[in-house]
This record gives sequence, C-alpha cells and structure tokens, in this order.
Amino acid sequence: MTDLTIGIDIGGTNTKYGIVDRGGNVFHQGNIPTTDFEDFQDYFDSMADALREAIHFLPKDTKVVGIGVGAANGNYYTGNIERATNLKWKGVLPLAKMFTDEFAIPTILTNDANAAAVGEMIYGNAKGMKDFIVITLGTGLGSGLVSNGALINGKHGIAGELGHTSVNPAGRYCNCGKRGCLETYVSATGIRRTVYKLLADHLEPSELRGVSFDNLNTKMITEAAHRGDIVAKAAYEYTGRILGMKLAESVVHTDPEAIFLFGGLTMAGDLIFKPTIRHMEENLMPLFRGKVKILPSALSNQAAPILGASSLVWDHLDRKMKEVAY
Amino acid sequence: MTDLTIGIDIGGTNTKYGIVDRGGNVFHQGNIPTTDFEDFQDYFDSMADALREAIHFLPKDTKVVGIGVGAANGNYYTGNIERATNLKWKGVLPLAKMFTDEFAIPTILTNDANAAAVGEMIYGNAKGMKDFIVITLGTGLGSGLVSNGALINGKHGIAGELGHTSVNPAGRYCNCGKRGCLETYVSATGIRRTVYKLLADHLEPSELRGVSFDNLNTKMITEAAHRGDIVAKAAYEYTGRILGMKLAESVVHTDPEAIFLFGGLTMAGDLIFKPTIRHMEENLMPLFRGKVKILPSALSNQAAPILGASSLVWDHLDRKMKEVAY
Repeated sequence: MTDLTIGIDIGGTNTKYGIVDRGGNVFHQGNIPTTDFEDFQDYFDSMADALREAIHFLPKDTKVVGIGVGAANGNYYTGNIERATNLKWKGVLPLAKMFTDEFAIPTILTNDANAAAVGEMIYGNAKGMKDFIVITLGTGLGSGLVSNGALINGKHGIAGELGHTSVNPAGRYCNCGKRGCLETYVSATGIRRTVYKLLADHLEPSELRGVSFDNLNTKMITEAAHRGDIVAKAAYEYTGRILGMKLAESVVHTDPEAIFLFGGLTMAGDLIFKPTIRHMEENLMPLFRGKVKILPSALSNQAAPILGASSLVWDHLDRKMKEVAY
Repeated sequence: MTDLTIGIDIGGTNTKYGIVDRGGNVFHQGNIPTTDFEDFQDYFDSMADALREAIHFLPKDTKVVGIGVGAANGNYYTGNIERATNLKWKGVLPLAKMFTDEFAIPTILTNDANAAAVGEMIYGNAKGMKDFIVITLGTGLGSGLVSNGALINGKHGIAGELGHTSVNPAGRYCNCGKRGCLETYVSATGIRRTVYKLLADHLEPSELRGVSFDNLNTKMITEAAHRGDIVAKAAYEYTGRILGMKLAESVVHTDPEAIFLFGGLTMAGDLIFKPTIRHMEENLMPLFRGKVKILPSALSNQAAPILGASSLVWDHLDRKMKEVAY
C-alpha cells in the first residue's frame, strides 16, 4: 500500500490541487479558479467534489493519509484562514476542520509561504538544512522561516509575514491597510507598480509605454528587459535593491544558511538575483557578509505549490513518529 | 550535593560573574573591569584566579557543574567571541575552550542577549513561553529570539543581531561599520546621541545643556525627564518611536507572545514603554495588532546578567537529558 497526500494551494486567482507520494511523484493534478466563487461554501463544495472524483480514480494499492493546505493567512494552530487580504471571502474560514469532517483524514493548513518552506525542506534545495528562509514572490510577498530544523509558526500561528515589513512608512498603499510594505515593491504586483512609476518619472522610451497597467505582467517585463528595455531593466534593479536591503534585516534576525526565492519574478534569473545579492551584502552587518546564500527554489515548476502543501502532511507525520518514539 | 553553575557576563565596561543554583540563588558574586586589560590572556588569567578563589570558598556539599558565558558576539557553536565591536580584543577569542581546559567542566558561551533570553525563560517572566524576544538595552542593543521553545542560534551561531537592522541607511555611524543601525538610536549611547541632536536642533531650555557628552548618562536623562525637562522627555519619546517602529518588523518575522525589554533604559518606565508600545501597534501589520505584549524583564536587578549566563548551563543540561531519554 502506497501512502499518498493531497496538496492544495489556495492562491488569490487559482486553487491548485494534486495527489502525490512521499517521493514527490504527482498522481493527479487539477485546478479551480478561486475567484469564480462568491460564497466560500460553494467554493468548498466544488473542491470536495473534485477531490472525491480524483480519489476515486487512484490506483487500488494507494491510500490517502492526509490533506495539506497552503493559503494566504492560513493559521497552522487553528486550521483557519483568517482575514486573508488576497481572498474575497472575509472573516475566519475553518477550512482544515471542514476537510477533516468531509474526508475523515488529518488536514494540516498553513500560510502558503510556510508550505513552500516545508516543501523546500522535504523535496527541494533545503534538504538537510536547519536554518533557512523561503521568499515567495507572487501577487504578494510571502515568507517561511525555518530555525533549528522547524518552521517558525509563532505564538499565534502567523509568523513569517516579511511582505509587511516597512520600506517606506509614507510609501505605496498596501492591501493590509498600511503603507510602504515590502510586498508593494517586491512582488508581481510590486514590479508592475515600479514600471509605472518609472514610466511616469522618466523620459526614456520603452516598449512598456504601449501596455496598460491591467495588461502588464511579469513575463512581459522580463522579456522587455532581456531585449534591453531600459525601463524594464531599471525596474528589476530597483526591485532587487529593495529586496536585498530588507533581506539584510531578516538575516540578522535568524542567521539563515540560505534564502530561497520562489515564484514568477525569479524566472528573470540574474535580473533579479544579482541586484538582490549585491544590495543584501552591502546592507548586511559586516559579521554576516559572505555567509548567506541567495538561491532559486528547487520547486520552481508547475507542481511546486502542490508539493509544498502536501509536504505539510509528511512533516506532520514525521514529527508524530518522533513523539511516539520519545 | 547541590549542583551550581558559574555565570559570567562580559560587558564592554565590566565583567560580572557569580555562582548560582538552579533556583537562582546567588552563592557568590564578583566583578572585574573589562577595560583594565589590554591583553586578552591577562584578562582570562585574572578571571580564572577570581573563579578559583570563589570555588574554594563554596560550601562543601556543592559542586560546580558548568560555566555559562554571555558576551557580545559570542558564538554558541564555536564557543568563540568573534570580532566583538564593543571589546578592545580583536579577532577570534576561544573563550569556552579556555575555560573548559582550565576547570574541566562544560562551558556554554553565547551572545549576551541570547543569554538574557534563556535567563528570562529559566528564571524570569518568560517561564512557560515558547515564542518571545528579549531586547537588551545597554551600551548597544542586543536581542535573543526564542521560537518553538528554543533559542534561535542560526546557521553560524550569530542570530539575533536586531541592533543592526536599519533605521536610516544615511544615519548615525555605528561601531559595526554601517550607518543608521537601530542601536545607534536605541541604547544608552543612542539616547545620549539623541539628546545632543535635540539640543543642537532646538532652542528649548534644558538642564542637560550644562552636561558634557562624556558625562551624560541614562540616569541623568531619566531624572531630568521626570522633572519635566522637555528635551529629556522628547529624547525618550523619540527612542520609543524608533524602537516601536522596528519591533513591528521583528514581530512579523517570528510572531512572539511577548517582547521583554531589559537594561538601564527600561528603568525609565512609562517614558520608554508607552511610546514603544504605541508606535509598535501603529506600525504593525493589522493582523498582529493587540496580540504582542511589551513587558519589562523580570531579571532587571544586579544579578540578572549572571543569572542569564548561568541559565545557559541549565538549559544545556535539560536538553542533554531529553536527548538521552530519546
């Protein structure tokens, strides 16, 4: 009998789900548009239908042992999604309990970036590391911090919100209600705002002057930069500078071995990594210089969010085994 | 037979040492001026002499089981003091090994602020807490972070240098070689610089106009503020504002239950706590508001640094017991 886990990644736009084994092999994979559902119960019912069907078609010698969910503002301790700023359903959503009631298997829920961090540790480049940080660059900026080999969940289960550290208290408006948060500069949305700011402030010609704010996306900015577009290149330089400056502050908190960058922006390669590394080093307390690697996530493929979410279950089972032995 | 531990706190100005039991009772206490010794070996020899004498006069039914040392830039993994900016001895000082060679008992060395954090957990207000931060306000600003019930040491044993997060990249010069570090604003030295900045920029009369920079100390600023001195009060308000702003960023990293403030500046009570709490709350990501307590350390007395250092040994022995059981 092969144990399998269900991994679910709830993003602001899409919900990805899949069924995987301990080695990271994906047995089934699917997708539901998060934004299609005005009502949270309707969304849950559709997810449950899709999962029931997927489970029905699994090989006979397999068994689903748990569900892992990564979601913005997911709380590890309560299993609730709490006041997520990137989802349309407001208030407290008791998702882990709903899944456990429906499928009668344990459900582990956490912040999507925490899920990515556990995924990096179980399947990715952080195997064997005890101290590292994962930064996810999507619609917003998420982060998962691992110290002493364990995820930092914090007292209230909401640790790792580096996207809401401050770049400029009088800066860009943020979904969280504050101004000048890191994610308003460093994220898919952030670099788009930066491009528009640069287009507003400067006179340089740019192919991006022909694109509306709504149509502009990370891929277009990256491709323009690769073609030598001066505004697109400057936008990546600026994004890396801000990210590097702020990572220098995170480093002195937890002294990580490495920081992994995950998500669409990292597809730009050197365009984002080089300025990030340079500005982190420049802004670091000298004692830490040359000690902390900035690396791409090993999970940068389609199945990554699913692997991250499913890894929560393996991590949970590993810890349970240890407790029993103890 | 009662087990005792030696606690040593190496500050930039003074080295405090003492011998204590598990309950925090101090059997012996002494003091050596750190600055008196140009040569590190001379300093070590004097310390060793003092400790040998103290051990000689202990009750017969006691046994010293370990030495705990808290020192700026102390490295938990190596047992070395590494490039400390507040000590005159440069390079790498293998202090733990020297003590172990001399006394043939285990020596645990760490950052002085990490020692304060473990002390708070073993003897103080953080008993039973698994996620908290201790901020020490002395000549500099130190910090110790505890998550999942364990000190965050980091990959290189140098985690928790919150004093070197950035307030202003073009700000005050810092001993570490950077500019605008938090400790240049929030520390005994920092508030002194703030008083002088305020005296330079403003016209208000102040009793502190009659005091030289070298003679000015925290106690004088606190007493002047209590007498209503407008500059002294503004200096505390400014210090609390900067501290609160930066704590709001640390909170989103590790989501602590409480942040304990320790050291001379905290003797000012509301003068420092009120603005710190207010500005932390104002600058916090809304999700975290009202959740994190800012409290005085329970160890704010003469023996505190010794208790902090000695607690390293108890914590070490507790963990070793667990490993054996496991």
